Amino acid sequence: MFEKKYISQAEALQLLIDTVKSVLPSENIGIEKGYGRTTSSDIYAPEDLPGFARSTVDGFAVRATDTYGAKETMPAYLTVTAEVLMGQAPGFEINNGEAAKIPTGGMMPRGADAVIMLEHAQVGAASVLEALKPVAAGENVIRADDDVKKGDPVIFKGRTLRPQDIGALAGLGITVVDVVRKPVVSIISTGDEIVPYTERIRPGQVRDINSFTLAGLIYRDGAAPVRKGIFRDDYETIRQALSRAVDDSDISLIIGGTSVGVRDMTSDIIASSTDGKLLFHGVAIKPGRPLIGGVIDSKPVLGLPGHPAAVAICYEAYVRPLLLRMLGVKSENVFRKTVTATLAKRVASAPGRQDHIRVRIEAREGGYVAIPVMGKSGLITTLVAADGIVIIPENKLGIDPGENVMVHLF
Amino acid sequence: MFEKKYISQAEALQLLIDTVKSVLPSENIGIEKGYGRTTSSDIYAPEDLPGFARSTVDGFAVRATDTYGAKETMPAYLTVTAEVLMGQAPGFEINNGEAAKIPTGGMMPRGADAVIMLEHAQVGAASVLEALKPVAAGENVIRADDDVKKGDPVIFKGRTLRPQDIGALAGLGITVVDVVRKPVVSIISTGDEIVPYTERIRPGQVRDINSFTLAGLIYRDGAAPVRKGIFRDDYETIRQALSRAVDDSDISLIIGGTSVGVRDMTSDIIASSTDGKLLFHGVAIKPGRPLIGGVIDSKPVLGLPGHPAAVAICYEAYVRPLLLRMLGVKSENVFRKTVTATLAKRVASAPGRQDHIRVRIEAREGGYVAIPVMGKSGLITTLVAADGIVIIPENKLGIDPGENVMVHLF
Repeated sequence: MFEKKYISQAEALQLLIDTVKSVLPSENIGIEKGYGRTTSSDIYAPEDLPGFARSTVDGFAVRATDTYGAKETMPAYLTVTAEVLMGQAPGFEINNGEAAKIPTGGMMPRGADAVIMLEHAQVGAASVLEALKPVAAGENVIRADDDVKKGDPVIFKGRTLRPQDIGALAGLGITVVDVVRKPVVSIISTGDEIVPYTERIRPGQVRDINSFTLAGLIYRDGAAPVRKGIFRDDYETIRQALSRAVDDSDISLIIGGTSVGVRDMTSDIIASSTDGKLLFHGVAIKPGRPLIGGVIDSKPVLGLPGHPAAVAICYEAYVRPLLLRMLGVKSENVFRKTVTATLAKRVASAPGRQDHIRVRIEAREGGYVAIPVMGKSGLITTLVAADGIVIIPENKLGIDPGENVMVHLF
Repeated sequence: MFEKKYISQAEALQLLIDTVKSVLPSENIGIEKGYGRTTSSDIYAPEDLPGFARSTVDGFAVRATDTYGAKETMPAYLTVTAEVLMGQAPGFEINNGEAAKIPTGGMMPRGADAVIMLEHAQVGAASVLEALKPVAAGENVIRADDDVKKGDPVIFKGRTLRPQDIGALAGLGITVVDVVRKPVVSIISTGDEIVPYTERIRPGQVRDINSFTLAGLIYRDGAAPVRKGIFRDDYETIRQALSRAVDDSDISLIIGGTSVGVRDMTSDIIASSTDGKLLFHGVAIKPGRPLIGGVIDSKPVLGLPGHPAAVAICYEAYVRPLLLRMLGVKSENVFRKTVTATLAKRVASAPGRQDHIRVRIEAREGGYVAIPVMGKSGLITTLVAADGIVIIPENKLGIDPGENVMVHLF
């Protein structure tokens, strides 16, 4: 098995991850810009929430003891002495035998400890309230610190903020938040055959597909892509482009150079850079075997094979994990990117090699089915047709139809 | 069961969906802005891709018939007459007995129909090539239209564009794309107790949480949120705000008015608007029962209860489906928003009511576990702690521990 001379995907990833010594520095931003950013410190509640005892229903604020034993046939009688208005602290107190009309969300008056629902009360002449059921102390009331207690942690560091997380911060009056700076990822397209997507192509040329796909994936994962342009297959040209990219960014990606000579050039450039080291050249993974991993100036550098499918798969297998590490994302929330499905037909794999099979997903009675999308790894149409990939580990020779598989969505 | 007087979530959603007569108009944008937008027409390939026959390996372009019968012990002999350069159309032809050096991705010269891999060839003196294995016609070659055939559909209408879809368009030289205009959603916060998130609160007041959560959810789903501000609980004030919102946007959301009187005001305003109609008031769902649905000027209007959890759940249950309908998203790709898990503990539900249970997800040996997050629906912390919701349908009285459930992520 000739793949044995290559390291495994897990080893390759670990070597790259090890180049990232720490989470990137943080910056302080307004919460309205926080969606999708990752917190860099734990966030504690500066105050109780809601901050005052509130009614959860429309009804009457009372002292619970005044209602004990009340029933429809023998109501408890109270006197409605006041009304709570929304957004205002009641300027009165509830004494024994008294009740105050209160709306949902209204602030509990001093003295009252429970709320009788509108449906369980009748108000007659002279503001006499008949309570038809008893209420317990605390019933239909949210306490001042029921939602959040001052000083309690609200959001831990390493969380990628969702809309409801931003809402929670707004609710606590937290207007700014410390987040990890966005990782900057440079994309260097190489190849004498590559032309910009806006150009008419001549025979022998292809348009730059990969920098578009990569930029979108990087953006989606909360980082900042920089498309550096298309460079000729020339040692000095690529060396200079890479040197500038390493200066400007946190991760540098060189795409292309599919032929042996050009691939060797990329690894030579990394190995001979000041503070540069080649980590590996070739991984037992398909597609994506010709991957080059290195480090320059303590920053990861990847040489990606130029096939569009290999680019997308190498992104998910190496670049995304690197980004999550730089962002300090605590739990990757893997379930957000996966779905369990039943494989529709057998796929084979070579021993000692990790195979990444593109699949599309169909909903069927009782669950999802993953249908392999066949095609050479150079074909963009398979990427468009696929919803995700199924990974066949090194020690498996294939997966049989009907087996449950985890589909990694992309 | 008093919920019976309310319509079901499915009926409520259908009434709202029926107000959307067609997909929104389309606009033409550059593909670099296309990520996350939804196509409004089918896209066909303007040309073949790759557009020329290419080698998939480093090797020698030959006529396959010249290699028939070749083996290590009895190679076929050919003469290397030329070399293909990347990005250039070869200016020569391959005749019988001839071979041309070719890199991966290089254009096949006329006359050649297969490529011998470098590993299966030896080049000796006087450019003599020994082919150690035969190749079949077409072997190691991608045809001009192998990836995409001119005129074939590449991406159908109703697709929300992913990074790899944009890459495919770039590869075909498609620089602009027709997408559905982003739905505009107005958010009107109401309530005398509501203050902006930047303000210090006094007892009885709460900060505006919901417009933040909603804006983030709307943005995430590819639409344009407009936070209209906070309005007092006053008929004429809210009537005017709603009237402007309907003029400016495709969907109008009024949040708050949790007390009975205010809720009635919202439904009165909808019902008494010119071209306005109240569709329903109250749905058999928890949380989110006090939902108001209406239509003004053929545009959906929703009155959402003010509890943060109810707002998030009503968004997923009604607003998101409305947005997908306006965008013409073909398949909702439901699997992207769900994960299958095992319920960790029993949750109960009232008959005739659809219960939405917030859960957090933990990875365990063999799969995911959904752990109910308990708390009153007004509590923002349960939303922060939850990864998604499990829906208990109207006809179920609960779900037992160990049952498989579908978690709708949010």
